[in-house]
Amino acid sequence: MKFERIDRRTYNELRKVNIERNYTLYAEGSVLISCGNTRVICTASVEDKVPSFLKGTGQGWITAEYSMLPRSTGVRTPRSTSRGTINGRSSEIQRLIGRSLRASIDLFALGERTIWLDCDVIQADGGTRTASITGAFVALVDSLRTLWERGDINTLPVKTFVAAVSSGKIEGELLLDLCYEEDSRAEVDFNVIMTELGRFIEIQGTGEGDTFNRDELTGMLSLAEGGIKELVSIQKEVLALSEVEAKAIEEFQSPVCKQKQA
Amino acid sequence: MKFERIDRRTYNELRKVNIERNYTLYAEGSVLISCGNTRVICTASVEDKVPSFLKGTGQGWITAEYSMLPRSTGVRTPRSTSRGTINGRSSEIQRLIGRSLRASIDLFALGERTIWLDCDVIQADGGTRTASITGAFVALVDSLRTLWERGDINTLPVKTFVAAVSSGKIEGELLLDLCYEEDSRAEVDFNVIMTELGRFIEIQGTGEGDTFNRDELTGMLSLAEGGIKELVSIQKEVLALSEVEAKAIEEFQSPVCKQKQA
Amino acid sequence: MKFERIDRRTYNELRKVNIERNYTLYAEGSVLISCGNTRVICTASVEDKVPSFLKGTGQGWITAEYSMLPRSTGVRTPRSTSRGTINGRSSEIQRLIGRSLRASIDLFALGERTIWLDCDVIQADGGTRTASITGAFVALVDSLRTLWERGDINTLPVKTFVAAVSSGKIEGELLLDLCYEEDSRAEVDFNVIMTELGRFIEIQGTGEGDTFNRDELTGMLSLAEGGIKELVSIQKEVLALSEVEAKAIEEFQSPVCKQKQA
Amino acid sequence: MKFERIDRRTYNELRKVNIERNYTLYAEGSVLISCGNTRVICTASVEDKVPSFLKGTGQGWITAEYSMLPRSTGVRTPRSTSRGTINGRSSEIQRLIGRSLRASIDLFALGERTIWLDCDVIQADGGTRTASITGAFVALVDSLRTLWERGDINTLPVKTFVAAVSSGKIEGELLLDLCYEEDSRAEVDFNVIMTELGRFIEIQGTGEGDTFNRDELTGMLSLAEGGIKELVSIQKEVLALSEVEAKAIEEFQSPVCKQKQA
Amino acid sequence: MKFERIDRRTYNELRKVNIERNYTLYAEGSVLISCGNTRVICTASVEDKVPSFLKGTGQGWITAEYSMLPRSTGVRTPRSTSRGTINGRSSEIQRLIGRSLRASIDLFALGERTIWLDCDVIQADGGTRTASITGAFVALVDSLRTLWERGDINTLPVKTFVAAVSSGKIEGELLLDLCYEEDSRAEVDFNVIMTELGRFIEIQGTGEGDTFNRDELTGMLSLAEGGIKELVSIQKEVLALSEVEAKAIEEFQSPVCKQKQA
Amino acid sequence: MKFERIDRRTYNELRKVNIERNYTLYAEGSVLISCGNTRVICTASVEDKVPSFLKGTGQGWITAEYSMLPRSTGVRTPRSTSRGTINGRSSEIQRLIGRSLRASIDLFALGERTIWLDCDVIQADGGTRTASITGAFVALVDSLRTLWERGDINTLPVKTFVAAVSSGKIEGELLLDLCYEEDSRAEVDFNVIMTELGRFIEIQGTGEGDTFNRDELTGMLSLAEGGIKELVSIQKEVLALSEVEAKAIEEFQSPVCKQKQA
Repeated sequence: MKFERIDRRTYNELRKVNIERNYTLYAEGSVLISCGNTRVICTASVEDKVPSFLKGTGQGWITAEYSMLPRSTGVRTPRSTSRGTINGRSSEIQRLIGRSLRASIDLFALGERTIWLDCDVIQADGGTRTASITGAFVALVDSLRTLWERGDINTLPVKTFVAAVSSGKIEGELLLDLCYEEDSRAEVDFNVIMTELGRFIEIQGTGEGDTFNRDELTGMLSLAEGGIKELVSIQKEVLALSEVEAKAIEEFQSPVCKQKQA
Repeated sequence: MKFERIDRRTYNELRKVNIERNYTLYAEGSVLISCGNTRVICTASVEDKVPSFLKGTGQGWITAEYSMLPRSTGVRTPRSTSRGTINGRSSEIQRLIGRSLRASIDLFALGERTIWLDCDVIQADGGTRTASITGAFVALVDSLRTLWERGDINTLPVKTFVAAVSSGKIEGELLLDLCYEEDSRAEVDFNVIMTELGRFIEIQGTGEGDTFNRDELTGMLSLAEGGIKELVSIQKEVLALSEVEAKAIEEFQSPVCKQKQA
Repeated sequence: MKFERIDRRTYNELRKVNIERNYTLYAEGSVLISCGNTRVICTASVEDKVPSFLKGTGQGWITAEYSMLPRSTGVRTPRSTSRGTINGRSSEIQRLIGRSLRASIDLFALGERTIWLDCDVIQADGGTRTASITGAFVALVDSLRTLWERGDINTLPVKTFVAAVSSGKIEGELLLDLCYEEDSRAEVDFNVIMTELGRFIEIQGTGEGDTFNRDELTGMLSLAEGGIKELVSIQKEVLALSEVEAKAIEEFQSPVCKQKQA
Repeated sequence: MKFERIDRRTYNELRKVNIERNYTLYAEGSVLISCGNTRVICTASVEDKVPSFLKGTGQGWITAEYSMLPRSTGVRTPRSTSRGTINGRSSEIQRLIGRSLRASIDLFALGERTIWLDCDVIQADGGTRTASITGAFVALVDSLRTLWERGDINTLPVKTFVAAVSSGKIEGELLLDLCYEEDSRAEVDFNVIMTELGRFIEIQGTGEGDTFNRDELTGMLSLAEGGIKELVSIQKEVLALSEVEAKAIEEFQSPVCKQKQA
Repeated sequence: MKFERIDRRTYNELRKVNIERNYTLYAEGSVLISCGNTRVICTASVEDKVPSFLKGTGQGWITAEYSMLPRSTGVRTPRSTSRGTINGRSSEIQRLIGRSLRASIDLFALGERTIWLDCDVIQADGGTRTASITGAFVALVDSLRTLWERGDINTLPVKTFVAAVSSGKIEGELLLDLCYEEDSRAEVDFNVIMTELGRFIEIQGTGEGDTFNRDELTGMLSLAEGGIKELVSIQKEVLALSEVEAKAIEEFQSPVCKQKQA
Repeated sequence: MKFERIDRRTYNELRKVNIERNYTLYAEGSVLISCGNTRVICTASVEDKVPSFLKGTGQGWITAEYSMLPRSTGVRTPRSTSRGTINGRSSEIQRLIGRSLRASIDLFALGERTIWLDCDVIQADGGTRTASITGAFVALVDSLRTLWERGDINTLPVKTFVAAVSSGKIEGELLLDLCYEEDSRAEVDFNVIMTELGRFIEIQGTGEGDTFNRDELTGMLSLAEGGIKELVSIQKEVLALSEVEAKAIEEFQSPVCKQKQA
């Protein structure tokens, strides 16, 4: 590899990941995730009602909000309250987080309640949206455990583990898990959200500074697939599912979900 | 094909496309694009200044705004002014349009001016964001022609033609160019933005109701590639570039842009 | 006449008017109206509820929203969503449109439903508010026909045809139907909304650059009356009422409405 | 007259008018005007700059803001700050006040400064917009006197006295100066703004519950003309212009302004 | 005293206070209070419902809104509607007014209704928040009388009289009831809200330009106590309670309230 | 003591305090402060300009923003961006933080730059505003050190250490440093901000459920004084000032600041 990464990682190496569960006291699930210098607090809050379009359907809902602390960035960013409205980027990201995590849960088994996933970025060094998804998944599972303990639901309605990572092209090299420095110089930038068995939930790839072809696409997706496999292992390790819980999840996996990506 | 499309199209058939140039009187470029029942007015407006982060750089800017008329949809949607703020979906779409079209233009050759691309959806039957990109590209080229005619620039700084289309998976079938009915039932939904030579500018794929694997991804991208090739032909036909203009564009194509997708 | 109009019209001549019905697919009534270069899309959308102050009264409601596409004007106008609030002018105009059209309908015969009239200006060359009223009336009648066809109402509860036009004083001359160029130079500017029989619904006259006396007032109203008579003929022609429909309307005309302006 | 007015006035009788000058301490001009139970505080504040579209033109500006105290009305109205935006009615009224008073002043003689007219309704019993205009004119003249005293201008650049009043039709009767009770039952409602010599500045007439014909229009305008004559006398009395001031105003009257309405 | 006050008051002298009851026509209670040049209109409006957190509790609510007319100040302040949101200072003040007056009333005896206290500053010369509290208390009592007269409640549920005043330190001197001039030069600034028997409801003291010690604190509170005693006498005088009313109030005083500050 | 505190503290005992410096990577100063279960991230960000009212004065500025993460509380609180505006409580608190810390710094020695103190509450168990002040002071000193290291200033312009704590009355007992449980049951609630030598910067005391007398006031202030002394020791310990720094601070102490509260 000609391109030397500032933190000396190899092209297909994740940054150091740490997930601290039960990070805050009140939320039904809460996590502090660090991916290198990127740090995000993810909390899962259960509310006993659903948006109006779901009332009476028996189906639950999962929604996300994403925000950055003003000084999570190198230069202070004014709060959106000072600007009076959430900005386009945040709105885009929180829609992505919500979609991705809804795909991981059986919303009917959840029942008519909403789980709010709040992802608040404490420190931003690239990959805040993918770290949010990876971390929020853990908080979400913990909140479902809380519901199960309380007897509000009687299983763990998780269809599949979900994690996310970025990959990209810089000076022609394909790299996994870009930090901010790399991201700002990337010609192409991918965010990939996948299940534990390597099936895609969402792909977003943008040629910021250049276009890209099929081979490059395939290369970036393969890098992401490798990274996500590692991230799921870390999620599993920190969640330390009991046998009963693992079995419950097993039962929710649809045949398709069970089938590994060819 | 087991799945019969409501408008009897084959799986890889675009809806009928029509692009009417010079649709309004005042804009430097303006187009009414129809893709089936989806109709969007795209105008390109030139402003002689750039956002503050570009002042003094010699570089121009292209930005987009996207909006739907309240009754472009089956049920009337309240205006965002009544709600006080633009919604997340619109904001996401206009950022996508802006990004895609910036990729097609040499912003330095444009000089320190901004081109505003306003995409106002008159009628929405699926694929409004891709129709907006395909149509706005034509309006954008016309606005550059206007600048050239006025002598404000002395070439046509277009690096590549750009068009966009959706593809998706419904009941297991891969289909091109989803109408609203199809889109709302799709398990997977892709928006693909590509250059005339088949290189990707942006890919967004979401498993709304299901996950997807590599083969399905490849299938949906191939469908999109075919559609975009057709759309670019239509753009070329309606734009009717003169020889001088065609040659100007030729010169702006970077070696990579010129290279067809492998 | 000493003042030569830029489009060579005589002082009491309307601009060319065209009303295209069924302009969009989903609205219960929809029209593209052109008055010279001014073009407005008017849609009528039926909603099966009324504002809270009318609940339980048996009375329906008609309300309007007015907006200009950013590049409907010579210089691009930022969207009100960028500014966060609707501006005073738009708000004033949509209140006028709503008031004028409520006067034309028997709201009790409409029953407890709301008709939203959305007037979106595609191209603005003066007289957008009067064109909106003239066009929205046609869309409104079409939406009532739709309701009748659906069996939601059992008549056409139209009390009177309504149309609107401007007149003004420029360099001392009284002129009908000002285009933008004329309007911006006018000393006095009138907007007149009238029934088919020449009775006033609303008059707004402003001495922008000068005051005016009774004789001038009378002159401008007479010009408007002539214009409105023509506009109503055009509305009737494009609406092509059936005999049954014409008779239904006849029955809704109050004695006063039937009585021509003296 | 068959219709007996609740306060026993004759059809062409104004409510009792009182104008108290120097009502507040800090404003360059300030007035408490009462028209019957309607009471409005009008202040004129001078600012040493003009809106950007006037910079460098040598011309001044006059603008108005209108607001009602929450409990100026029979039922408490929430403040616009609670609703986040000024409502359409207030916005319409303040535009009217600004337009009317700009017509009374020589803006070039004012020089590049802005006079803000704040009209805050303490008690609302109909006719708040016309009372605002009549009162704000007095505050405006006082603020110009202050400027003259300070030596900022060297004359009193008033082109004409301006006052306003409503008239309307109730149960077929034409009446001057409607109180709230009357206004809410009126079939037709006029607001008339006139100069001291009976020339119109603005006319707004609406058939709220009925249409109206030319004769009725003429009748309502004649009533208003009579009322405005009285209001101007009251303005003159309370302003108590010195001979020098009266002469200054005389000189600003354009020949047309001087000419009485025929 | 070395420091001579601009209005020649002694250090412990209130400004001239005047409270005019029944200042407006429609409100259940309304007052114009003047403290020197500070003038505030306080109205009390009764609404027959409570905020949602009180529904079904049998308890009423008292809330306040505070606003300054744009030209109540030496330099015109833009309205909060122009800025789109209420400012921090106003919000802080209205929360204080609401809290202080809730402390004076038995909210259960009020029953499930809300009393809105609107404090609109006509002229601001320091001490507007304390004048608002002192005046609003009188309007509040009058609105309760109105409720009693109407038979909506069957007593006067006032637990204690409440008034407020400022004190502060200027050039080392402790002074009562600061006017604007004094306030803007004060090193320390206190707002004290007290019951008629000298018990504290709220204290807010800020060292704007200096810190302060215990002795100074004690001195400023003693000044305030004296001022509040006088203000309560004035409230009592203008309210002119009947014997029955005075007895009703007596009964609402809790033993602690009855006990004078030691 | 009859009242047993839920965490078994004595009446005059602080909760366990921990201050972690350099909590985030990018801010010039940053701290995570915990006071019992209350946890707040405080960052200090330097900006090289001042608000317009200070331009050209040579004086710097310190301002604060305060916000709670949605799930810092027992029940999730919607973000202010969803509500479109900052709420009154937050606005009040951030004004208090700003005022208190401005009192601790020599703003002229800071020079024309602004220090933004962002206090983001991660977990809220009472006393979030006082914890914010105590923690933000440490972040502020660290940011000044950074400026000194960079050579932007040539001293440590700290006039005095500042810390804050609450005290209150519950069931008649006076207690120091209320947790949420206690706070919500408190009859009286004080927030006290003091210098290291025991002089007051700000006092806010509210009788939420009861009034209070002088003796109780004195008791609560004494409790607070004791707590603040401890908090300042902790601040000093974690800041570990060098001799040179300590000497710089010494020089900024005004004679009055140096003088201990009598």
